[in-house]
Amino acid sequence: MKKDVNQLALELHKSLRGKMEICSKTQIKDKYDLALIYTPGVAAVSTYVANNKYETNNYTMRGNLVAVISDGSAVLGLGNIGPEGALPVMEGKCVLFKHFAGIDAIPIVLSTQDPQKIIEAVLAIAPTLGGINLEDIKAPGCFIIEKTLREKLDIPVIHDDQWGASVVVLGALINALKITSREIKDTKIVVSGAGAAGTAIVKILHTKGARNILVCDREGIIYDSRPGNSSHKQELAQITNPKQQKGTLKDALVKADVFIGVSSPGLVSEDMVRSMNEQAIVFALANPTPEIMPDLAKKAGAYIIATGRSDYPNQVNNALAFPGIFRGALDHHVKKITTEMLMHVAENLSQLVADPTPEEIIPSIFDERVMKSVAQSIRDY
Amino acid sequence: MKKDVNQLALELHKSLRGKMEICSKTQIKDKYDLALIYTPGVAAVSTYVANNKYETNNYTMRGNLVAVISDGSAVLGLGNIGPEGALPVMEGKCVLFKHFAGIDAIPIVLSTQDPQKIIEAVLAIAPTLGGINLEDIKAPGCFIIEKTLREKLDIPVIHDDQWGASVVVLGALINALKITSREIKDTKIVVSGAGAAGTAIVKILHTKGARNILVCDREGIIYDSRPGNSSHKQELAQITNPKQQKGTLKDALVKADVFIGVSSPGLVSEDMVRSMNEQAIVFALANPTPEIMPDLAKKAGAYIIATGRSDYPNQVNNALAFPGIFRGALDHHVKKITTEMLMHVAENLSQLVADPTPEEIIPSIFDERVMKSVAQSIRDY
Repeated sequence: MKKDVNQLALELHKSLRGKMEICSKTQIKDKYDLALIYTPGVAAVSTYVANNKYETNNYTMRGNLVAVISDGSAVLGLGNIGPEGALPVMEGKCVLFKHFAGIDAIPIVLSTQDPQKIIEAVLAIAPTLGGINLEDIKAPGCFIIEKTLREKLDIPVIHDDQWGASVVVLGALINALKITSREIKDTKIVVSGAGAAGTAIVKILHTKGARNILVCDREGIIYDSRPGNSSHKQELAQITNPKQQKGTLKDALVKADVFIGVSSPGLVSEDMVRSMNEQAIVFALANPTPEIMPDLAKKAGAYIIATGRSDYPNQVNNALAFPGIFRGALDHHVKKITTEMLMHVAENLSQLVADPTPEEIIPSIFDERVMKSVAQSIRDY
Repeated sequence: MKKDVNQLALELHKSLRGKMEICSKTQIKDKYDLALIYTPGVAAVSTYVANNKYETNNYTMRGNLVAVISDGSAVLGLGNIGPEGALPVMEGKCVLFKHFAGIDAIPIVLSTQDPQKIIEAVLAIAPTLGGINLEDIKAPGCFIIEKTLREKLDIPVIHDDQWGASVVVLGALINALKITSREIKDTKIVVSGAGAAGTAIVKILHTKGARNILVCDREGIIYDSRPGNSSHKQELAQITNPKQQKGTLKDALVKADVFIGVSSPGLVSEDMVRSMNEQAIVFALANPTPEIMPDLAKKAGAYIIATGRSDYPNQVNNALAFPGIFRGALDHHVKKITTEMLMHVAENLSQLVADPTPEEIIPSIFDERVMKSVAQSIRDY
């Protein structure tokens, strides 16, 4: 019997004992080498850097070092599995950083899930780092963590579950709207999921000009002053749902142009897709099992379909964005990543597809132009 | 004009832009590779590890990962130069870890010098790590940091300025005493410096049986209830100075058998060495400039002389100890490093010198037997 991907992944990880290693760029052949890389020579370097802190990135690994930090509270589709369970994912992310952008990335998993303690721990280790990629930290804690770290640090801080996802979604959506001749301001967009990704997607779409967005969570459509609204959901209510509609995801999807799911497997039925407008755009991004499988969505009339999976067309994959975002920020000394920069990234991503079709609205992660285009966007803006 | 070591070190560091990099052990050639190292395959690994936490080290890099952590408060002989200045030294230490013991080591420098905050930050990131090497953290904060982390974590935690130094000093001293036919219990030992290294040296010598130790700091010989004694100096007073002698370093050295300096350049004069007993043993370990230069000490009658320098015989170098200590602890799942283990390391280190002479009391760090012997000692004990 052929081994499945899970069994192969377990075997690979056990044989590697970790996917990353830390290597020297220099050799120690004798005491003269030692004298240069350690005492006494390193004292001159330390003295120089201590007196010229802006030179730190030129004399240490910090200029190319990003930490991938998680508390293990929202790992992939697995939920709150803790720091040990998060570690293989964070190492995988570090492999992607190196492969796609040549960035040295180190996984850091945390023993606390208290946002204030996470903030303090990250601030404490920050002088080591050129950038911070927050990963798989659950909402709403992730919002205050990212916001506070951005305020207090002068290095790029990105919660990738928010911004990586939203950038790529926007890039794909720009082409989908182009194919279907829609203007974003007139397009009815339904977002399923109001966690990290859903919230960031709504924010970036709103910034891009979307004015008819409905966001749904487990309790249905979010509206202003809905009982129990957390502060971030209340914030979402302010920029969505202009008619203060109430109801379920099913209600929301009636006459919608676009569905964007970052929620749970199987939430969307064929009937729900049928209730959408002509040339419906369905981004069913729950991973690994989408809100509706592409073949069912197609059968129900969806015109453009994207998922998070590599085995269907139009893979919406964060790896299109985060390597280049950090590459650009590190190389061009960008200290704060703004929503406007990310919109610029999304626009350039969409333009890498010269002739968008329903089967190709976003470039492949193996397209070598992607990382450079993204990095360039961060520089140029 | 020939370039000096400082200039060469600066040039080397600038050209390398950091001495370490983080490398993948695996390749990403296509989407099938991606499916194994990242989603969806990694989900199986994360689930397995989350449910079997004891397997974490077998499926991630954690089993071979040590953090070299500093707050930059006591860097080499440079003092409190802060985290940026500390970073080149910590990277250098990481190069030594890799070169001498094949250990993946990552530098972490901190934005805080508050012991309680350091403890919290290290506890927060600890699930990432197989071991913790505290480095260049000033006394007395280093003592409570190490003690608390050892109590709260089940991975090896070593403040190397304390234990690395003390292990190698003891190893060298065992041979020096052998050559001069002294028993440690009858030997008068004067330690200059009551910081991290001095304190640990006193503790390990006392555990080894030394009963006639005098410790001096800037104010002279430490004695019981000396006005202003901090708690760690009061602790030192309990195990040293049996006759409650008062006075200066000069007074202490009269009729001493052994001088161990981990203090400041030039503190010891030729006259002070002359006042010591016959066959005096002088370990002048202040770095890079010793308490007394070896040629002066020799002229004044010292019989066995050691320094921290590579350009004189008998280099007392922490790098003899720490790579093997962590190698042994990681490989044999040793969760707590004890003083008894470290004494065992010192004894085995001393025995690597088959025929000790005044010019050879400790092996070279380039002796390939060293790391294995040290690691073996940690396993065996």
